[in-house]
Order: sequence, then structure tokens, then C-alpha cells
Amino acid sequence: MSSHPTLSPLDLTSALDGLHPDLRILGPEALIGRHPGEDPANLDAGVMVQPASTEAVAALVSWCRANRVAIVPQGGVSGLVGGSVSHAGEIILSSARLNRVLAIHPDEETVEVEAGVTLEALQAALEPHGLTTGIDLGSRGSATIGGMAATNAGGILAFRNGVMRHQILGLEAVLPSGEIFSDLTRVVKVSAGPDLKQLLIGSEGAFGFVTRLVLKVEPIRPHRAVALLGVPDASRGLRVAARLRRHGALQLEAAEMMWPRYVRDHAALKRFDLSWLENDAPVLLLEVSGETAEAATTLLEAELAEIWEEAELQGGIVAQSSDQARRFWDMREDSGFYFAAFPNAPSFDVSMPPSALDDYVAGLTDRLNAIGDGLEAYVYGHIADGNLHIAIAAAGPLPFDRKTAVEAAVYDGIRTSGGSFSAEHGVGLEKHAAYLTHVDPVKQALARQIKAMLDPDTLFNPGKVPF
Amino acid sequence: MSSHPTLSPLDLTSALDGLHPDLRILGPEALIGRHPGEDPANLDAGVMVQPASTEAVAALVSWCRANRVAIVPQGGVSGLVGGSVSHAGEIILSSARLNRVLAIHPDEETVEVEAGVTLEALQAALEPHGLTTGIDLGSRGSATIGGMAATNAGGILAFRNGVMRHQILGLEAVLPSGEIFSDLTRVVKVSAGPDLKQLLIGSEGAFGFVTRLVLKVEPIRPHRAVALLGVPDASRGLRVAARLRRHGALQLEAAEMMWPRYVRDHAALKRFDLSWLENDAPVLLLEVSGETAEAATTLLEAELAEIWEEAELQGGIVAQSSDQARRFWDMREDSGFYFAAFPNAPSFDVSMPPSALDDYVAGLTDRLNAIGDGLEAYVYGHIADGNLHIAIAAAGPLPFDRKTAVEAAVYDGIRTSGGSFSAEHGVGLEKHAAYLTHVDPVKQALARQIKAMLDPDTLFNPGKVPF
Repeated sequence: MSSHPTLSPLDLTSALDGLHPDLRILGPEALIGRHPGEDPANLDAGVMVQPASTEAVAALVSWCRANRVAIVPQGGVSGLVGGSVSHAGEIILSSARLNRVLAIHPDEETVEVEAGVTLEALQAALEPHGLTTGIDLGSRGSATIGGMAATNAGGILAFRNGVMRHQILGLEAVLPSGEIFSDLTRVVKVSAGPDLKQLLIGSEGAFGFVTRLVLKVEPIRPHRAVALLGVPDASRGLRVAARLRRHGALQLEAAEMMWPRYVRDHAALKRFDLSWLENDAPVLLLEVSGETAEAATTLLEAELAEIWEEAELQGGIVAQSSDQARRFWDMREDSGFYFAAFPNAPSFDVSMPPSALDDYVAGLTDRLNAIGDGLEAYVYGHIADGNLHIAIAAAGPLPFDRKTAVEAAVYDGIRTSGGSFSAEHGVGLEKHAAYLTHVDPVKQALARQIKAMLDPDTLFNPGKVPF
Repeated sequence: MSSHPTLSPLDLTSALDGLHPDLRILGPEALIGRHPGEDPANLDAGVMVQPASTEAVAALVSWCRANRVAIVPQGGVSGLVGGSVSHAGEIILSSARLNRVLAIHPDEETVEVEAGVTLEALQAALEPHGLTTGIDLGSRGSATIGGMAATNAGGILAFRNGVMRHQILGLEAVLPSGEIFSDLTRVVKVSAGPDLKQLLIGSEGAFGFVTRLVLKVEPIRPHRAVALLGVPDASRGLRVAARLRRHGALQLEAAEMMWPRYVRDHAALKRFDLSWLENDAPVLLLEVSGETAEAATTLLEAELAEIWEEAELQGGIVAQSSDQARRFWDMREDSGFYFAAFPNAPSFDVSMPPSALDDYVAGLTDRLNAIGDGLEAYVYGHIADGNLHIAIAAAGPLPFDRKTAVEAAVYDGIRTSGGSFSAEHGVGLEKHAAYLTHVDPVKQALARQIKAMLDPDTLFNPGKVPF
């Protein structure tokens, strides 16, 4: 990170006045009272610019480059690793007014959007066409398509549809040079030289600002059935999920697993009925779709009955109404419940190859226990793609030594097993140590070279991913 | 492209002797009589090195870098754009001995392979586990996984599974620096900084040599039904395909369309029965899977009957045996039949957004006609993803002016419509003009910068993609 000459938020606000007709400038006054999103420091820059066109973004970036002013891109500010935190002297570049759904192509199942459209707004725009996004996540109301591209977001459907990178057919961005990079293909098959839009996906705003995207979408499969099952372990849970994935008349829509402490404490807090659950087992939430809701329910019940003995299921319950299905989902999606008891609980988001999950969770339990003080974790996540969310049952921030020990316990063995220390949240400010420790040094060096080439003055989201 | 000091094939053969125990060196003598693959010039270098380990690749690359000798990577040499052509003074780096399937994880539906494994060998290794690759293409017997990564191959299943880029979870490569880039994640969800393995996918060996990959695979769906339909146009064909994609108990496995001249000439040559086809209509080949072959056939017939009027189908026939299904497929997969009548017929491989296909094909017909001499094209391809293969019914190579006019006719409007001048074959030697004309100049400049950064001496596959 190089240092930049610092202009005050008020200086910046006046300097930008009149730069481009499609730029709205919000100074310190205008930002008062605005919700900062997931991180209280997101608005610390005190200046936010909201462009309404790609050309306006390019004008702003060129100005920032000429004046060596750093840019912090912001979408829905729902990120959990500090990737949108800003400081005085920087400019927040917000996608809030780049919020148009530009074209829906129902026959092709594609859509073209500006980067600031929220996932929920896009789903609402698609719904009349019988379509929906191929990616879904809990923060759908605030997360933007551009922010999801910048962090290569994953969510609930990744096991079947892949992650954001797999949804993106075309992309336009403004590079740190101020040039507009335009690769708005609307087709899945392209082999026409290096696919450099991939650099803009998952690089957390460090290589450019995404302005426009073309995405694959998919038909809504509205006829659903939802079940909660007690499973002895992830391995047996995966076996149930694999069976449903191979079913000719059912589609698996979600396989979300919650380990016992998460289940117990959440149920106690929210009075979820667990009378059906045996032996304090982990709980697997399954959702399937079929030709009708009744068919889905009947077939799901039949499949579960057939695999019951083999998978050693520890009780189960199939939702008999959409209300009940919603309550099952609350148990999984309202996952922040533990922050009430443990404010700022250290939280992690890792991927492990699914067949390694049981060993990983057992090892994690032992490693946390070895740290002392009866340290435990809430563990839950997307079992079919191996993405675990982990929150330590302790108020944060932890003292430095404890923090380091906990991180070592969480990340132990992940790289050698083929997993990732960050599955869908990114690196941001929070995961620097993990990035420096667990990413292949050759890959780190290459990332630094590309950063230096694209953004020699380190003006794009400085200090986030450690280049 | 910089120039390199030229060593003769024999000099190179002796110089490499003993460099690393895992390197097999084949000199000019050893290459005599070897089939060059799709391009007669593939073996012109006269020296082929076959490493059996990543370390041996790294040793070779370091030696080449020190001695400024260029490297031409080769997999199955089934490419159609000259991407593997070599010259005296260069070394062919073959993946032939990197041919191990390293690990199959049936519960996770992932596999780890060396780059030289052929698609067919991988399919055979997966079959006992009830699994197969999520990508399939006609040249499966020779195409290697590494070559398919380097060209971001597509094939028959891209409309549902995406292309090679979407199958790859992890990748190891040797960079032009001689360093080993290792990102062998085995998970779909990774948001841990820029995903630089994407640079190695689809860059045709210009940025490094892929040695090892982790891929997603998927369950075999063995119970199939196949039909041939007459359709008035692509739009109606897409409607039929879309209906089948939304069917709860059927999965669409292929939707391949052949336009009339292709159908007519191929049927005349191979005596395909077209008595069921009305009005010289384009033909759509559909394949679906279901719970049993009988169920798939019955449901497919019922769906076609229901949409018959609306889609204005022009006759149709559902295969009553696997033999008959195979004959239907021969009509599509044995597509090189026209080379007998038109040797070296100029051929193209474009993507268009599926809803723009009819306008494109009509425009193409007019534009070719305007060139004169009754110029016509064979058109066929993967309708659901918009990938058309086009061969001009004229012997090649064409005189320069005619070639330029034909290329302009084929590529007209593709970029502005959101398509691609190369869908799955790459750029290689054959598509330089198209690359320079139809790729965003900002993207071209960025590709040049990255090439210069990674391979400052232009040693990796020089002269292919024009950097």
C-alpha cells in the first residue's frame, strides 16, 4: 500500500462538484444518520459518490488517478470481513444508482443488469417470467449483484449451480486506469483468448469497479418439500443428499447442516420444537422440488424411509405447510442468534471437501478444547459443497494470542485437504493473516504483480486483500 | 513475438538428455511415422518432451527459459485452429505421460487427474462409480483434460453444466518462470483473493502449462430417449428445449440442431432415413433422461404431442432402440462428412445468444449469397447455448479476398449481439484476424500486458493468440 496525499472529505466533496452530470456527490453532512451496513467503519471516508452511468464511473476514476485519491467500492455493504471499510481521504464509490435491470431474455434464461441491483430486486424482476437467480443467499435484500461478483459469492445453491463466477456470462468494469473494460457476452461458450473478466470476479474491488453484468438465470421450481433430519454425522448426511440428487423426479434444492451446539442453543432461544430429534444429533435441513408440492413431499418421505436404516437417521420431520417450512428455514438462516450471548464472536467461513467434513469438525473440537477454557464453536453450513460457517462461543475481539490460537485451530489442515480458509466471504481486512499463511506463495506473488500492473498507485480498495 | 536463437532438433535432443529422470525425449527419428493430429504441422518442431511429473515440467521450462527455447504445449492434438502447430527450434511439451487418474471421490463427485488423461479414459475410470464428466464432446477419445482446460472446451452439455471453466475446482501449472503454481482446491466455494488459476484456463498455453486438475463430475443418467424433430426454425426448437428443461421428471441432455443443407447432404451421403421429415425443415436432435428408458420415451412422446401444434413441428421420430438412437447421433457427430466434397472447407465456430440464432442464420445466408458464386454454408450446433458450427461449402483454402469476405459475412454482428467469434475452438493460428477485429481493444491490451508480465521472452506457444 502506498501513501496518498490526503484531502479532507469536505475538500473532496467540493473538488468533485460538477465533474460529471451522472455523478451524485454525498458529503459528510449527507452521510449523517446513514446506516453503515455490516461494519461501523464503512462510511468513515465521509464522501460517497453515486454514479448513474459507466461513463460517470470512468470520469471519477480518471479524476482519482490524476489526483491520487483512493477509491473504496461499495455495494450492499453486507460483507462480513471489512472489505468495504473506508477512511478519511478516500472516496466511497457506491453502486446505489446503478440499479437498473436492463434486459431479461426469458427464452435464453439470461439477464443484463447494472451492478447495484440487489439480489432480491433481481429475483422480483425475474419472477413474472417464471425465472429466478441461480444463486441465493440470506442477505438477498441488501447484497448487490456487483458486490456478489466482487466477492465471488456462493450461498445456498452453489452445490448445484456453482458460485457467482459460474453465473456470470458477461461483465463490464472500469479499470484503475479509467478505461472501460467491456466483455458483455451473453453466451456460455467463449474460447476467444484469455478470459480477463475473471480477474474482476472475486478480487474484492482491487482490480476495478464492476458496472454491468450478464447473468445466467433459471426456471423457478416452485413445488417444494422441506424436512429436518437427525443425522449421525456429515458423512451420512451427504449420503442422503447424494441419493436425492440422483432421484429422477426430485431435485435437491438445499442441504444445510447444523451441528449440535448450534441446534441446541438456537432451539432454546427461539423455542424450536426438537421433540422429534434423537440423541442430540446434528440436524440436516433438506429442501427438494418436484412436479407438485404433494408429489415432492410424498417422494421425499418415501426416499427417507428407504434410506433410514442405512443412514442411521436420528429422527426426522417433514414440513406439512409452508409456514412450518419457513420455521425450519429460520433455524438455519437466522444464524446470527449467537451474537446476543457472544458479542463480536469470532466467526469463520471455510470450505472443506465434503467427505473430509467429519474429520475436520472432530479435529476442530479437539483443537479448540486444547486451547483451554472449554472453548467451543457453533458450526453450520452448506454440507453438499463443504462450506462451513463457524462462530466461536466467546465474545470478541479476542486478545491477540487467543485470536492467533483460535485461527490456527480453525485453519489447521484446510489447505492440504483441498479446502479454502475463505469460502464465500472474501479476505477483506479480517483475513489477512490467513491469506498470507494459507495461499500458495507463487499465487500471492502473481497477485501482487497483477495488482502493480493494473493499479500502480494502489488506489482501488487499498489495504483489503494484502497485495 | 520475439525471436529466439535457433537450435536444430538434433541439438535440442542431445542438450535435453539427462536433464531430469522423469523426462522422455523424442527426437526427429522417434517422431517419424507418428500421427500429427488435426494439423499436419503439429510435429514440425521435431523434438517432443514427455514429462512424467510436475517437477520434470518445471525443470524443462527452467532450461528453456535459460536457453531461450520456445515451448509448444500439446495434449490430444485434436484442436481445429492450429493451436498446437510447432516449428524447428521449438520444443513440443506433451502431456502424454501425465496420464494418471489420481483420485476419485465418489461421495463428493470430484476427481483429481493429471493433464494428459483423455476425456474418454476419465469417463471410463468414473463409470464403475456411477459417475461421468460434466462435459462431453465428439473428440473424447483424443482430447485431454489439460488441452480442454487450455481451450476452455465446451461440447454437448454446456447448456446445462457450463464449459470447462465451470468444471475446474483446482489446478496446478508450471508458469513460464519455471515456478509451480499450485491451487489444487477440491471445493466449489472459494473467495480467498483473486482466482488466478482462471488465467490458465482458456489461454491456449500462452500463460503456462497445466499439469494437474481437480474437476467436478456428476452421476451417470443412463436411462435415455432420443428423438429427431423437424422444426421450422431455431426459435421453435428452443421453445421445445425450454419445455423439456422445465419438466419435473425428465432432464434435457442434448439439443443439437442441423440446418437443411447439412441434413440433406449428410442424409444423401449416409442414407439416413428422412421420410418422416416434412418441408425440408431444419432438424433438432433431442436427448432426455428419466427414471427408466421406457419412462423417458413415454414422457418425451407425450411432451412432443402436447407442443406439436404450438411449435409447428415438421415431423418427428423417437428412437425405438439404442441402435436407432446411435444412428440419430451419427447424423450430428460425424459432422466432417462435407470435407470429402469440399477439402479444407473454411470452418467456423461461433456463439450467438440463442434467441438471436434465426436472424443470424438468415443474415449469414444473405451475406454469403451477396459474395457471389452461390456460396452456401453447412450450419449445425448446440442450439441451447447458441454455439453454431459453420462450414462453407467450398474447397479451401480460399483466395485472400474471398477468405476476408467470408469471414466478414460469418462474424457480422456477433460482438454487438453478445456472441463470440470463437465458441469452443480457441484462437490458435487460424483466428488472429477475428481476435484483432472483434475483441475489445482494452481487453486485448490487458492480455498483452499480462503476457509480457508472465512470459517476457514469449517462450510459451508463441504466435498463437496474437498478443
